[in-house]
Amino acid sequence: MGGGDVVVAVDVGGTGMKCALVGPDGATVHTERHPTDAGRGPAAVVDTILDVADGLAAKARADGRTPVALGIAVPGIVDEARGVAVWSANVGFRDVPLRDLAVTRLGLPTAIGHDVRAGGLAEARLGAGRGAGHVLFVAIGTGIAAAHVVDGSASVGAHGAAGEIGHILVRPGGPRCGCGRPGCLEAVASASAVGRRYAELAGTPATAADVAERAAAGEPLAAQVWTETVEALADGLASGQALFDVATIVVGGGLAQAGERLLGPLRAALHERMTFHREPRLVAAALGDEAGCLGAALLALDALGVPRSMETR
Amino acid sequence: MGGGDVVVAVDVGGTGMKCALVGPDGATVHTERHPTDAGRGPAAVVDTILDVADGLAAKARADGRTPVALGIAVPGIVDEARGVAVWSANVGFRDVPLRDLAVTRLGLPTAIGHDVRAGGLAEARLGAGRGAGHVLFVAIGTGIAAAHVVDGSASVGAHGAAGEIGHILVRPGGPRCGCGRPGCLEAVASASAVGRRYAELAGTPATAADVAERAAAGEPLAAQVWTETVEALADGLASGQALFDVATIVVGGGLAQAGERLLGPLRAALHERMTFHREPRLVAAALGDEAGCLGAALLALDALGVPRSMETR
Repeated sequence: MGGGDVVVAVDVGGTGMKCALVGPDGATVHTERHPTDAGRGPAAVVDTILDVADGLAAKARADGRTPVALGIAVPGIVDEARGVAVWSANVGFRDVPLRDLAVTRLGLPTAIGHDVRAGGLAEARLGAGRGAGHVLFVAIGTGIAAAHVVDGSASVGAHGAAGEIGHILVRPGGPRCGCGRPGCLEAVASASAVGRRYAELAGTPATAADVAERAAAGEPLAAQVWTETVEALADGLASGQALFDVATIVVGGGLAQAGERLLGPLRAALHERMTFHREPRLVAAALGDEAGCLGAALLALDALGVPRSMETR
Repeated sequence: MGGGDVVVAVDVGGTGMKCALVGPDGATVHTERHPTDAGRGPAAVVDTILDVADGLAAKARADGRTPVALGIAVPGIVDEARGVAVWSANVGFRDVPLRDLAVTRLGLPTAIGHDVRAGGLAEARLGAGRGAGHVLFVAIGTGIAAAHVVDGSASVGAHGAAGEIGHILVRPGGPRCGCGRPGCLEAVASASAVGRRYAELAGTPATAADVAERAAAGEPLAAQVWTETVEALADGLASGQALFDVATIVVGGGLAQAGERLLGPLRAALHERMTFHREPRLVAAALGDEAGCLGAALLALDALGVPRSMETR
């Protein structure tokens, strides 16, 4: 890649798209945000993605840069090898051949990736997991999902569904998960589950952030819910560590915004559970909600064969 | 490798060593078994491993073959990159630089691997997982451990400790595991746990094989223990599938000798737990107790850079 070359990166979420032009060193030179308006249906969303990507390529050219590839991160089940958005609950994708559609429209080499895996890639290579080699990125928000990144590549699985740590069993007979099974990690410890559990006990609605704050202020019900959450997360992360044996666990997503209120007790609870395991470093994500977009850019750079040593920021 | 070339393979267990000479196509041309006599201490065991390997190389030469590399599989924590047997409960290894010792003694390129990962490698490439691409091999015996094999390579982890599916939490507050924590899969569903649980309920000792047989014969206590075991294993495998998304799960080890008495109900229980997951094929291991030795041979072939397409048996 030349000095003026950039990749176009788009991270498609249920409510908004985070977009950027990114250089070969992983440095962002321009960002944009656009609404997804998922209610319009998947065909309209795909049109918007392509319009936005095309607009970003045009913006690059207007600024004297050369757009050389496109990376798109989407939620749900993603077949990265075929470039297909297989299934998504919140955007409504069903077997959308997004890569081919993008290549036809923009004429650029295009890579499609899963949003959490893209975020994990970015945290592992440019963010809080930098230099660790083996990283587990865990995004805790409305749901819980993970990306296992080894030497800068995220595990995809046989069908594009790897990393669903939100659906490992931690509380048999526990709260029913959106997936239909009881006791999944996500049903106990996602940001939505924390708010729901507190509302159930206190009889008054609250967000996970409220619960974190009230727990820190010593409110007993909030403290109880927070402790239950931390214990369930520690159980889930300990099971993940038994299987993956990573050097660093990076915690991101909305719940991670509680910072050390989450990470302090979670680190202690994880430490308690480490017996034969090698204890991983547990750190907060560093790239915030730009991780997915940066990861989409990395997928585009990887598709071009840009050496990773260029990631120097 | 030439037509008369073979690799020397040694699989070191707590009680015995399985040894073989293996051709570049994965075909075994000679096998031997030797006692490990772990009670003599790790130094004596290392001497025996090297004597046995040296003897196998001599046997190859006496038969007009050329030994070109050595593969050794050992239990415990294994640093495959450095060739070091880091830790083993039943053989007593503590940071044994086994690869360097073998290279010094035999003068052959040598690869060291973890026994379950080696077994998983063999099942994935030559056995029940052949052609699947993404395979989880789960060995259920005295303990429970797994190997995640993608495109013919087993995940090792950051510290050589990946795949410890026996220590994922399935029954919070359940039986205490050898690792010190309550409710690990291994504490509920290993062959030893099955025998122990039945003895506890029935007041009379029994092996896991006894329990399987009595459950099939309709004995209520045995049926109860068998069902508990299958449910716990299904919980563990479902959590594994959520994280790994494999195409095939291969079940091996002593408990798998129960055949369809285990696999039939386990397949049904796993099916029940698959919601968003792509359901993996669940099959019995095909290579029996030779899997680890064949895997050691594959590690040696990989170290030599022998193309995998030669595995044609």
